[in-house]
Amino acid sequence: MSSLSIHGIIGYTITPFTSDADGIDLEALGRSIDRLIAGGVHAIAPLGSTGEGAYLSEPEWEQVTEFSLAHVDKRLPSIVSVSDLTTAKTIRRAKYAEAHGAEAVMVLPIAYWKLSEAEILQHYRAVGEQIGIPIMLYNNPATSGVDMPVELIMRIFNEVENVTMVKESTGDIQRMHKLRLLSEGHIPFYNGCNPLALEAFAAGAKGWCTAAPNLIPELNGLLYQAVLENDLNKARELFYRQLPLLDFILKGGLPATIKAGLRLTGLEAGVPRLPVSELSEAGYRQLKELLGTLR
Amino acid sequence: MSSLSIHGIIGYTITPFTSDADGIDLEALGRSIDRLIAGGVHAIAPLGSTGEGAYLSEPEWEQVTEFSLAHVDKRLPSIVSVSDLTTAKTIRRAKYAEAHGAEAVMVLPIAYWKLSEAEILQHYRAVGEQIGIPIMLYNNPATSGVDMPVELIMRIFNEVENVTMVKESTGDIQRMHKLRLLSEGHIPFYNGCNPLALEAFAAGAKGWCTAAPNLIPELNGLLYQAVLENDLNKARELFYRQLPLLDFILKGGLPATIKAGLRLTGLEAGVPRLPVSELSEAGYRQLKELLGTLR
Amino acid sequence: MSSLSIHGIIGYTITPFTSDADGIDLEALGRSIDRLIAGGVHAIAPLGSTGEGAYLSEPEWEQVTEFSLAHVDKRLPSIVSVSDLTTAKTIRRAKYAEAHGAEAVMVLPIAYWKLSEAEILQHYRAVGEQIGIPIMLYNNPATSGVDMPVELIMRIFNEVENVTMVKESTGDIQRMHKLRLLSEGHIPFYNGCNPLALEAFAAGAKGWCTAAPNLIPELNGLLYQAVLENDLNKARELFYRQLPLLDFILKGGLPATIKAGLRLTGLEAGVPRLPVSELSEAGYRQLKELLGTLR
Amino acid sequence: MSSLSIHGIIGYTITPFTSDADGIDLEALGRSIDRLIAGGVHAIAPLGSTGEGAYLSEPEWEQVTEFSLAHVDKRLPSIVSVSDLTTAKTIRRAKYAEAHGAEAVMVLPIAYWKLSEAEILQHYRAVGEQIGIPIMLYNNPATSGVDMPVELIMRIFNEVENVTMVKESTGDIQRMHKLRLLSEGHIPFYNGCNPLALEAFAAGAKGWCTAAPNLIPELNGLLYQAVLENDLNKARELFYRQLPLLDFILKGGLPATIKAGLRLTGLEAGVPRLPVSELSEAGYRQLKELLGTLR
Repeated sequence: MSSLSIHGIIGYTITPFTSDADGIDLEALGRSIDRLIAGGVHAIAPLGSTGEGAYLSEPEWEQVTEFSLAHVDKRLPSIVSVSDLTTAKTIRRAKYAEAHGAEAVMVLPIAYWKLSEAEILQHYRAVGEQIGIPIMLYNNPATSGVDMPVELIMRIFNEVENVTMVKESTGDIQRMHKLRLLSEGHIPFYNGCNPLALEAFAAGAKGWCTAAPNLIPELNGLLYQAVLENDLNKARELFYRQLPLLDFILKGGLPATIKAGLRLTGLEAGVPRLPVSELSEAGYRQLKELLGTLR
Repeated sequence: MSSLSIHGIIGYTITPFTSDADGIDLEALGRSIDRLIAGGVHAIAPLGSTGEGAYLSEPEWEQVTEFSLAHVDKRLPSIVSVSDLTTAKTIRRAKYAEAHGAEAVMVLPIAYWKLSEAEILQHYRAVGEQIGIPIMLYNNPATSGVDMPVELIMRIFNEVENVTMVKESTGDIQRMHKLRLLSEGHIPFYNGCNPLALEAFAAGAKGWCTAAPNLIPELNGLLYQAVLENDLNKARELFYRQLPLLDFILKGGLPATIKAGLRLTGLEAGVPRLPVSELSEAGYRQLKELLGTLR
Repeated sequence: MSSLSIHGIIGYTITPFTSDADGIDLEALGRSIDRLIAGGVHAIAPLGSTGEGAYLSEPEWEQVTEFSLAHVDKRLPSIVSVSDLTTAKTIRRAKYAEAHGAEAVMVLPIAYWKLSEAEILQHYRAVGEQIGIPIMLYNNPATSGVDMPVELIMRIFNEVENVTMVKESTGDIQRMHKLRLLSEGHIPFYNGCNPLALEAFAAGAKGWCTAAPNLIPELNGLLYQAVLENDLNKARELFYRQLPLLDFILKGGLPATIKAGLRLTGLEAGVPRLPVSELSEAGYRQLKELLGTLR
Repeated sequence: MSSLSIHGIIGYTITPFTSDADGIDLEALGRSIDRLIAGGVHAIAPLGSTGEGAYLSEPEWEQVTEFSLAHVDKRLPSIVSVSDLTTAKTIRRAKYAEAHGAEAVMVLPIAYWKLSEAEILQHYRAVGEQIGIPIMLYNNPATSGVDMPVELIMRIFNEVENVTMVKESTGDIQRMHKLRLLSEGHIPFYNGCNPLALEAFAAGAKGWCTAAPNLIPELNGLLYQAVLENDLNKARELFYRQLPLLDFILKGGLPATIKAGLRLTGLEAGVPRLPVSELSEAGYRQLKELLGTLR
């Protein structure tokens, strides 16, 4: 398990719906995966927030997982998001992903009822015991309602063997500092907040989980490259160049903005599921302008 | 539609699971509903937060809805929570509840991706157009991630015909003040925050949606009665008497504390679904003591 | 000390500046105090937030304190705000107020550097030891940067003999509930948040510290009277009638709105000190309309 | 005015009190300034938060300003904090600082009563019109109660000629991103949040305003040097080495921790003014250990 080394740009896939919004457009999904890989990402993350995983029925979730893993076909490592409100369903999904070839799973604890630290730890332990692949622990209070302090993350990392990576999406760089200090540099952490890409790398993040490579994979990759080359001035310049787009896709909601951007760049991937709306006309115009300066 | 008048104590049902946590214990559900009715509540609200609606599979959700409505059997009005992340599934559930005899449905917009005001309005409109029974709009940012300001609630109330009631669970009494002032007293509002029961009634709330009547229905009813009798001193005294229990069940998580309380008072209703844990032993002891002084 | 019983409507005074904003207009101050007393308030609180105490030089502060106490002349009890960043200056002011006849002082701990609970307790103890009159502990994080949890307030109340009253201005009614429960009703608490007036009385507040009686003393007094008469319906009606004005003066900033209201009702009291501006023209119009319906 | 170029490490001075806490220990102040200069800082900032400016009487403030400027004696540029609640006093202080040789002043708007954007702008304009040296606009909502959004900062920068520098202390790196993007790199910004030192430099900050050089000037300077040399790996390593101390001095309150650190390193500078307490014994031990590994 420990031999898996995820790093660099980890690209989220979208989930394209058919024009009646009722089914999955697998052909478009395949093309979007191919674009990510052609763009140079270092790993693929199906069914995360961008992939509207939370908006799918269970058969749809399985269909997308199976297809995505088969389509990536080991060209790159795949990390499948398997999060659900209940422990039982999270386990079922994790096993499904493992059985269909995922290299790792991503697990975000979700609160309807607030969870105690013991409940969160037990959740990870229960999932970990049922699978043989690594878990990327994912902290994102804005979407999940659960905020795991660094001390709890450390405890889960230490007590659950297959939790081997941490994705931090609070947007608070101090969390990464603390992770690094408390673990003496031993916990690999990944940034899940687009506008923090530069600073997360500066702080030592091993990778950047992002939907942006659906639209600007080269710029994303060059930023990572500049960091590897220890060239802060170049990294800064590359970061500020792409920041307006990173801000835009985040504020507009990733499924709506990324699907709009794919359409603008020639890949029809439909629109998000209601109540989430398609990007507005004004939004399309702004996005087109942004993409025009960057691609 | 406008002839429906929900008021007073609106009791939430729990959803008892079988001992293996895999199925629904309908017999216990029936008994818990009978207890609520015997305790004097004025309406029944199946499948709300307390009912762990978010933790059920779709077939389970339908099973609980159908059974609850049949078991209440029009002895009291029933308001079924039909909230879901997608508009399509919310509509399907609302129609299901209506078809099985619900007097009203409760709709809480839920955010994985943040929703704009236009998206929220459209969500209510889409649900409203598909059913012929009233909707209780429900605002609870702590569990749903969506906070609807009073101005938006007013707009939805004015534009969607069957939105005829508002349940406010932010715990911020100023929201109720504003609702009353802006609507000139025309929007009936209901309190969904237990420790605000006294003040919400003081501010003019028409009802109190609460899980507490599973345990202390008489005290809940007497508080409402004192308000109807315009006896503030008595209402205050009754409120402070039950407040420690109201605080306890809220802080401990309603499914865990109410199920524990039911067990302590002779109705075995199982435990919540993981990752939500059963009440701790210390919690049981504290709850037993609290109940001892109140029942 | 224990014989002092402050209750009901506690009216804040404003501090009128001369037209060049450089000095204090004592004549206007005297008239404003007389209006408060004629309006029926139960106590006078000079130099609180409304009195712009924080914006005065030390000689000005002493001048206003001495004049106010002499002018009230024991017609009603006076509670003088003596808060300052340093303990030494707070003590100096408290002694000054006592020496000039104050019945009590109000003390709000202020943070530039965040204070620990031990530091706050020590601050109250140091002030308490130097004076022989009661202290009203004042909690108002929005203006002071210090939020004292109820447990700390209890501790100070229990450990510092002359802290005998608590003024709560967080706007969170649960603080009052907790104060009442933890002290078993033994700590007299006062409400300092205008839009919470009804609920604070419902929760058992002994008084309402407010600048509103500068403008609508009768309505303020009638609300308190209705509570004393245990008439919730009447209290609710009176509260909602004055709420738009209470909201207005709070949101507009009390010194600006109260001084504007005094001018509109015939008492020229100047304008606040810069950078706080006079009420805008649109604000004057709105305030005039509000006052027209209430006086 | 535009020829002033502040950059690099800007060191805050402390204000040492005499042993009875009643007066200023000018001799110790002089020695602490000499240490900062010997340590290699690029500018001196007297009377900021660390300097307990808010806790001084007006004569004390003037005494410290005059002495500090005379003692620096143009060896480095001096930026004097002149912030006060009222505009009038802020102007008086700014003129005093200019008259005694300050190269620039730092202005933080302070709220007792919340300030509108127009009031804040007018405050800066009024100060700017009265002096002929540059103003460093300072945003620090945690201590001042005023949070200036980037758009307002831009407006002030554009409309008030001598506002030529911005110090950002929210700790939110996105503010710096936005400043840079909106100003197209034309507004020089400075970081005032110690644990953000690395990321602020990564984002393009021109300097770091910090009390840390009172204790570890070499490490602070080396971090800046690494950034100038475009060596991200070295900057990261240097940052993490000093981060535990940076966290410690911030969380413990700068006046208390810095004065303790000075004492531990041979410069007796007394203790803070009450209610702010001296560092605890446990704190001294922890600080001694931290300093032992860094000096």
